[in-house]
Amino acid sequence: MDYFCFTFIVLILSVLNRKKSEICMILMFSFSIANVKIGGCMIKVGILTISDKGSKGERTDGTCPAIKEILNKNIYSVEYYKIIPDEIEIIRKELIYICDELNLDLILTNGGTGFSKRDVTPEATMKVIEKQVPGITEAMRQMSLSITPMAMLSRAVAGIRKNTLIINLPGSPKGAVENLKFALPALPHGIEILKGTAGECAR
Amino acid sequence: MDYFCFTFIVLILSVLNRKKSEICMILMFSFSIANVKIGGCMIKVGILTISDKGSKGERTDGTCPAIKEILNKNIYSVEYYKIIPDEIEIIRKELIYICDELNLDLILTNGGTGFSKRDVTPEATMKVIEKQVPGITEAMRQMSLSITPMAMLSRAVAGIRKNTLIINLPGSPKGAVENLKFALPALPHGIEILKGTAGECAR
Amino acid sequence: MDYFCFTFIVLILSVLNRKKSEICMILMFSFSIANVKIGGCMIKVGILTISDKGSKGERTDGTCPAIKEILNKNIYSVEYYKIIPDEIEIIRKELIYICDELNLDLILTNGGTGFSKRDVTPEATMKVIEKQVPGITEAMRQMSLSITPMAMLSRAVAGIRKNTLIINLPGSPKGAVENLKFALPALPHGIEILKGTAGECAR
Repeated sequence: MDYFCFTFIVLILSVLNRKKSEICMILMFSFSIANVKIGGCMIKVGILTISDKGSKGERTDGTCPAIKEILNKNIYSVEYYKIIPDEIEIIRKELIYICDELNLDLILTNGGTGFSKRDVTPEATMKVIEKQVPGITEAMRQMSLSITPMAMLSRAVAGIRKNTLIINLPGSPKGAVENLKFALPALPHGIEILKGTAGECAR
Repeated sequence: MDYFCFTFIVLILSVLNRKKSEICMILMFSFSIANVKIGGCMIKVGILTISDKGSKGERTDGTCPAIKEILNKNIYSVEYYKIIPDEIEIIRKELIYICDELNLDLILTNGGTGFSKRDVTPEATMKVIEKQVPGITEAMRQMSLSITPMAMLSRAVAGIRKNTLIINLPGSPKGAVENLKFALPALPHGIEILKGTAGECAR
Repeated sequence: MDYFCFTFIVLILSVLNRKKSEICMILMFSFSIANVKIGGCMIKVGILTISDKGSKGERTDGTCPAIKEILNKNIYSVEYYKIIPDEIEIIRKELIYICDELNLDLILTNGGTGFSKRDVTPEATMKVIEKQVPGITEAMRQMSLSITPMAMLSRAVAGIRKNTLIINLPGSPKGAVENLKFALPALPHGIEILKGTAGECAR
């Protein structure tokens, strides 16, 4: 609503002071912003980087920035970000906090999906989800297999807790971005259905 | 066996009354029917439409007729059909009834496999199956992905309870038919193995 | 280490007795053997044939020899082999024995992954693994589907228990070999990560 107010004030000021063509441009720009914001239709995202080294400050997290860069800013708004170690209890509590307290729409974890002893992200995710969404990680692996046979080693899972979709991504910036790109075309529709806002958001 | 008897009687009557060419045609026709019926080899199917609106009579079920239409009548015999609401306990009890009481070979559910709060068909199915059959739903999603990226949002599962194979299909007629078509080539063989009749049925 | 000693002795003997070109050849050959053995980098494999008939001696096991034949002898060393019946408890105990007592790196089961009442290999495997590795069996089924639609009937699972990766393969020699071939390109890397020896083994 405040976007509408803002647009309105800008418009009135414009009409008082400017020429016809300028008003037109401002009008179009204001509407394009207002459009995606109406009705809370932005997808609120939490990014969780899961890395022992990252959480101790021994490695810079290059994966979160890489994920952010491919999320269309007109659709996705990253509202939470944290680096945590590969500890199943810490991951579990963090996921519950983002779902139940922050009530975000989408959690993208990265890291901890491989074969190392410390990799427990899928196990932590399975503990918190109420519904499994096997198709998203199947699709990510299926399409990644055309790039590298190592894709089959990703143990990533996806699922729903309350109003939140959780998706595990690989830890490397390249792997995370590749996998997320395969899932992106289906996410807005899925999340609208989950939130019960399908048809309300113009996209 | 009664089919064989029937075929035999028809044949004898034919020989007594008809010309050579007519006998030949009756012979071929009788054998083609007898062929698929010997030893109870028809696959007995239950179709379960899972829809809140459908169960209240607020929407006509277009998916069950669409499913029936692509089932080869020489192989599949639909012996049970019901519309039930998206209630996990109702779905669970209905699945157990069809498996344990009716002893059908195949249950095709449709609906309740998506992201909506009310969608609980996979969860109900997981509660009743004794063995998971991940390959069927993986294959359906894999092939559906070539049609639409939304395929990855289907949370459908498949599994075995006692003598019955249960497969979740999407709720829309188009989605259900598309997905079932991908699975059909493997079903008769799988169900024969499950029933222990493999090799007995000529197909 | 004993490989190094052996190589050294061979070398010294060679120097004492042979011509320059012969020494060179022996040197190269010795190093090529020593190379893959350094640091215990050979992948220790257990093969478990699961078959009621095989365990009673009513059928010769053709699948184990077929599996052995496609395992590169410079990478994989088959250190255990047994035929056991399709009994969930026997399979479970055998898997635990190979993982916990023998501490092998990879278990390849074959048989018991289908639709028959006696097929319980995936159920036994699920009972012992601590982490699921869905991508390996997804990839095997996905690629097998291009050969036969029956691929979707394989209920094979894969997972990790302690230091051991367990993979279910189909029971037929043809099916087992086909499926294993799809997985092989990713296995050495996955197992190195699991053992914590990544980067130590020259491959």
